[in-house]
Amino acid sequence: MTTASVSAEVISVGTELLLGEILNTNAQFLAQELARLGIPHYYQTTVGDNVLRLQKAVAIACERSRLLIFTGGLGPTPDDLTTETLADFFEVPLIERSDVLEDIAQKFARRGRQMSPSNRKQALIPQGAEVLPNPVGTAPGIIWQPRPGLTILTFPGVPSEMQAMWQQTAVPFLESQGWGQEIIYSRTLRFWGIGESVLAEKVAAFLKLENPTVAPYAGKGEVRLRVSAKATSEAEALNLIHPVAQQLRDLAGIDYYGEDEDTLAVAVGTLLKAKQQTLAVAESCTGGGLGQLLTAVSGSSAYFWGGVISYDNHVKINLLGVNADDLTQQGAVSDIVAQQMAIGVRERLGTTWSLSITGVAGPDGGTATKPVGLVYIGLAGPGAGQVESFRYEFGDRGREMVRWLSTCNALDRLRRRLLSRS
Amino acid sequence: MTTASVSAEVISVGTELLLGEILNTNAQFLAQELARLGIPHYYQTTVGDNVLRLQKAVAIACERSRLLIFTGGLGPTPDDLTTETLADFFEVPLIERSDVLEDIAQKFARRGRQMSPSNRKQALIPQGAEVLPNPVGTAPGIIWQPRPGLTILTFPGVPSEMQAMWQQTAVPFLESQGWGQEIIYSRTLRFWGIGESVLAEKVAAFLKLENPTVAPYAGKGEVRLRVSAKATSEAEALNLIHPVAQQLRDLAGIDYYGEDEDTLAVAVGTLLKAKQQTLAVAESCTGGGLGQLLTAVSGSSAYFWGGVISYDNHVKINLLGVNADDLTQQGAVSDIVAQQMAIGVRERLGTTWSLSITGVAGPDGGTATKPVGLVYIGLAGPGAGQVESFRYEFGDRGREMVRWLSTCNALDRLRRRLLSRS
Repeated sequence: MTTASVSAEVISVGTELLLGEILNTNAQFLAQELARLGIPHYYQTTVGDNVLRLQKAVAIACERSRLLIFTGGLGPTPDDLTTETLADFFEVPLIERSDVLEDIAQKFARRGRQMSPSNRKQALIPQGAEVLPNPVGTAPGIIWQPRPGLTILTFPGVPSEMQAMWQQTAVPFLESQGWGQEIIYSRTLRFWGIGESVLAEKVAAFLKLENPTVAPYAGKGEVRLRVSAKATSEAEALNLIHPVAQQLRDLAGIDYYGEDEDTLAVAVGTLLKAKQQTLAVAESCTGGGLGQLLTAVSGSSAYFWGGVISYDNHVKINLLGVNADDLTQQGAVSDIVAQQMAIGVRERLGTTWSLSITGVAGPDGGTATKPVGLVYIGLAGPGAGQVESFRYEFGDRGREMVRWLSTCNALDRLRRRLLSRS
Repeated sequence: MTTASVSAEVISVGTELLLGEILNTNAQFLAQELARLGIPHYYQTTVGDNVLRLQKAVAIACERSRLLIFTGGLGPTPDDLTTETLADFFEVPLIERSDVLEDIAQKFARRGRQMSPSNRKQALIPQGAEVLPNPVGTAPGIIWQPRPGLTILTFPGVPSEMQAMWQQTAVPFLESQGWGQEIIYSRTLRFWGIGESVLAEKVAAFLKLENPTVAPYAGKGEVRLRVSAKATSEAEALNLIHPVAQQLRDLAGIDYYGEDEDTLAVAVGTLLKAKQQTLAVAESCTGGGLGQLLTAVSGSSAYFWGGVISYDNHVKINLLGVNADDLTQQGAVSDIVAQQMAIGVRERLGTTWSLSITGVAGPDGGTATKPVGLVYIGLAGPGAGQVESFRYEFGDRGREMVRWLSTCNALDRLRRRLLSRS
């Protein structure tokens, strides 16, 4: 059998998905697993609990894919149609498997519950299919070759059951088939302070590479480059990825801040720890979000000492020493107040550095001169009078987005300052 | 035009989805929205950044659906293929729209960034299509009838952009078409401080209803009941939902805190505003997360004044007046320190109430007597010496979960206190 032609399709069955009542995490799990196993995967389909539409989806999938992976529709209720629809489609009778029935009965007994007649349905398996055991719940799946060159796996929709069945039975089965071509292994490089298109042009030559491939993505205020290698092992993939990632980092320079799950808070923390320096924050419109992001990093107590949430102007005056006249004359959202907040919190906490944020997060509170999205970031550091402030106009992009961009830009300012002095 | 025949298909474009690198939250959002608008939605397809496969997916979708909603593939890079693939498929040229180009240029200018030549691509629109404006990012979508009885909408993959465009332009457009049939309208009731099975037993009779249906869900530390009605209008659906929701709220009592997008911070804010009272926070292990949640509510400045992030013990002593001997003898994670933090921040900020949080978020820092997941919450209020503290053992459930549960339980303690005094 040529291995090149086996590609997988994930078919998620359930009206609840089409109503948006649940998020399709199964499709993501299976996608990750197929990539890990090196099995190509080009399509995903979601269809409701409807015999006709499910049959049509199966007909299309058979034409374009040779491994069909179903999730959902294996339960005991009349809504659960996957197994009988597949048997109908391939014109094969359903057989009640006594071993499966006994297993279901035992599981009910062990939980001290009565097995209901509707659970009998879960023991019906298309003739010729093998049982894909369910170690967690009652509904088993199937492994079935209804015709040469076509393989079907079915799983319940409950993620914990599906994942246990996948790991215990499906993975060994798939590995034994030799369908795995190359593993696709990826590393994500993260950038702040550069637009997607500018970065893409800077690294244009790399976007044409074939192995590894390099692809840009826009995130929440940031840009990412995904470097994906096809290889027969993780080590080989990393050998392909590493030199390219290094060249990309060199090209991007200071705009590169971390990889994979790194945040700007991780990047700042690593730099502070290396320098044995400390940080405090003074937050107005972000209300604690900067501190929260910093302390999401385990071990952040080594460099982050804390700060003041000065949401109300009295707190700015009383706890941070912001000048009341400046507040009145320049307003809370101003360069001078951002600077005084940074100076105040740094002095009071005795840290090396401090960051402050004051702005109009919206949706209310904007004026002609201080529109929603206007944010000032203050940065104070060692050295007499060393304080700076930075003005941003993020626009009316939603309260949470303005707050998020404020937090990230504050961290990025400190990151650049720390790098410029190393 | 008969309205019965219009059904929607969501087509998610992006290799990153097929590699499992991102979760397809867009598909869920659109599914919810289509249900809300009463537009039938029978299929979802996910396909990679590949012209041929995308064309095949379009061909299939045209056969079975009359409203195709695309997300992804509108960016400036060569990977972004949706617009040109659609134009190719329907054999229509792409036209550079000068108004779109100008809008993109202005957005770059406003952010002080250089527009790159590759962004020009985002101004290309199939001949005959209308622009679906993007108020957030640079890439607009399209609204297009490439042939009679077939409508195409395209959106970028970035959720914040897609959602803004959906709300501002797509929803009014779809509503004006009269495609909505039977609406499925849901309301979610939210509960804190009661387990899923206990609540399910309390409301057992309601779980058998047929219209509206009532279904329990477990959330992050909370339980929800979704009440869903089928009707021909939102008003009719709400008439079905309201009496049932009221009975459920009555049955649950104080454990009910809000509905739909309400958070515990919204519930607390509503109570404080009604009483014209104010709140301050002192946060250790949550590092600002409580303040952030409180200030995520627009208008929270009416009752939330701010607080102190006392991550380091020196900050607890210097800014909150926590007794250094108590800190040494009892440790930072103790009843007495939680109480002193609450008293300290309330006195310094002059608010009616204060909340404090101190705990071991993990994964490191746990000991035999103070394990990971041990958290104390302090609550101080008006009246001489009125301070309480509450001990929680959340267990080693991951740093973010321990911090989340700490934040929510702190808010819930204040919510119950405010309700008990009304």
